[in-house]
Amino acid sequence: MEKNTKVKFLYELLSLKDQISSKETFAVDKNPSNIVIAGMGGSGIAGRLFQEMYSDMPVFISNGYSLPKFVGKDSIVVCISYSGNTEETIAAYEEAIEKNAQSAIITSGGELLSKGRNVVRIPTGISPRSALGYMLMPLLNTFCKIPEEDILEAQMALTKLDNDSSKEKEIAAEIFKGEHIPIVYSTSPNDSIAYRWNTQFNENSKILALWNSFPELNHNNTMALKSTYKKELFYPICIKSNTDKRISARITATEKVTNMRFRRVIEANGTSSFAKLIYLLHVGDYISYHLAKLRNVDPLDITSIEELKSMIKNPI
Amino acid sequence: MEKNTKVKFLYELLSLKDQISSKETFAVDKNPSNIVIAGMGGSGIAGRLFQEMYSDMPVFISNGYSLPKFVGKDSIVVCISYSGNTEETIAAYEEAIEKNAQSAIITSGGELLSKGRNVVRIPTGISPRSALGYMLMPLLNTFCKIPEEDILEAQMALTKLDNDSSKEKEIAAEIFKGEHIPIVYSTSPNDSIAYRWNTQFNENSKILALWNSFPELNHNNTMALKSTYKKELFYPICIKSNTDKRISARITATEKVTNMRFRRVIEANGTSSFAKLIYLLHVGDYISYHLAKLRNVDPLDITSIEELKSMIKNPI
Repeated sequence: MEKNTKVKFLYELLSLKDQISSKETFAVDKNPSNIVIAGMGGSGIAGRLFQEMYSDMPVFISNGYSLPKFVGKDSIVVCISYSGNTEETIAAYEEAIEKNAQSAIITSGGELLSKGRNVVRIPTGISPRSALGYMLMPLLNTFCKIPEEDILEAQMALTKLDNDSSKEKEIAAEIFKGEHIPIVYSTSPNDSIAYRWNTQFNENSKILALWNSFPELNHNNTMALKSTYKKELFYPICIKSNTDKRISARITATEKVTNMRFRRVIEANGTSSFAKLIYLLHVGDYISYHLAKLRNVDPLDITSIEELKSMIKNPI
Repeated sequence: MEKNTKVKFLYELLSLKDQISSKETFAVDKNPSNIVIAGMGGSGIAGRLFQEMYSDMPVFISNGYSLPKFVGKDSIVVCISYSGNTEETIAAYEEAIEKNAQSAIITSGGELLSKGRNVVRIPTGISPRSALGYMLMPLLNTFCKIPEEDILEAQMALTKLDNDSSKEKEIAAEIFKGEHIPIVYSTSPNDSIAYRWNTQFNENSKILALWNSFPELNHNNTMALKSTYKKELFYPICIKSNTDKRISARITATEKVTNMRFRRVIEANGTSSFAKLIYLLHVGDYISYHLAKLRNVDPLDITSIEELKSMIKNPI
């Protein structure tokens, strides 16, 4: 059983390279003046990534039951919930309709599929956090089409990783051996990569992690890295998507002034920023997967989250 | 010396209640369609808080060297840098001018004061993170005036805290005794309170911390809380600003399904959301201050950050 779910999860990882070829779009009747993306957890991450990839228009992320006040007829509200039954996202959808905003839904089923209009329906049967490609691509396809050669480049990078994730396994083994808490740092504007790695460690490997991004972390975290409690407990990793010299200087200087070495500085080859981003995200998927295997926990298990949802629906 | 800086920091904490009576505003010539706030670390936190307190218009936070593409003549870009010499924020200001956006500056001096127009000049001589009131109030005064009675209510709450922070000292003592890493959870829409506490632990107490917010954390962190490495190392605190029953149910359910108890659930008395927010922020200031005293570290010391800045300016 345990073994089977690990195989199933590996199968899910392999599907990202197919997911990013999705050509799905949703309808945008008239040009909005802002975009609000409502979604939680594994479904919400697509919105966070999109916000950093597309800045031609203000994109606002909503992570709760209610939408910001400015939402109105000039907004488009995209509600993303893999299951279609996330209570926060259903509430956000209802508010969008009340406020006469344009609305769109990305879901595989549930209440949002049955009640919604302008739905991008995505395949069922995988875990929400493994459906990232299905949820991200409709946003990109609708607002800023990614060139076909960039998608092909990303698929090549993912194929390489799918065929050989031994480096990621090595990192997982180091974390496992030391029972470390990862510190995941990304580089601006891709703060969400670090957030995604953090949530993948949470859900797949069942461990806590810290995250932040250069240069912001140089204004706060830096003071703690030198002399925090249990310094040896942490496992600092830097995901370097931004090759700006000022960012590189900051990474080196941070190590010097805090007397802390990044165990890994992970970079992506290639030319397109889309391909690099997708590759760097997937490296985190593999590390968290291998760590789950080593810990002998099921990467697909989300029993606590399911228990919590049913507890909230049936308050004692 | 060490002792003196602690006394100075205490003096800074006491000044928040005066800072929030600031009536400063900056000019907004014509109604913008969006607001971008550029600022890093202790200066940037004012923007994060403002974004959650004011949602009549899209407010976008910029934490790096460059502004989002959508910035143009219909935007107002507010650049906040306590020192006026933050290189990221100076770059953002220059970009705002290039893009013909309306611009405003909140600073105490430096390059931004000397080159900028439309400046709110704030007092010098305190640490940026202790000047939160000076940096937050001009944003609120300009876009959504806080009623005088709410400010008075906040001042009363702060005075009580300034006179007696023994509860905060007790929390600091527990963290100190166990050499814990705090997990700071807030409640949506006040995610920034948790971020601020985290950064205060970083800069004042020189320890790392984790942060997240309900309900988002129920979709990822929850799976890690039960069986993370070194579970006993962490010190979970919940800052409950949202009294929505659905959030309360989530807090209780999270404890049950993860077999983890919050060491403290911190709430605010009173009626106005402004007063509650300011009070809850200041509780974190005091805990981090008392923890610095117990650890015998100087809460004002930011040597590593200063070293890093000079290293970047003079790359080897």
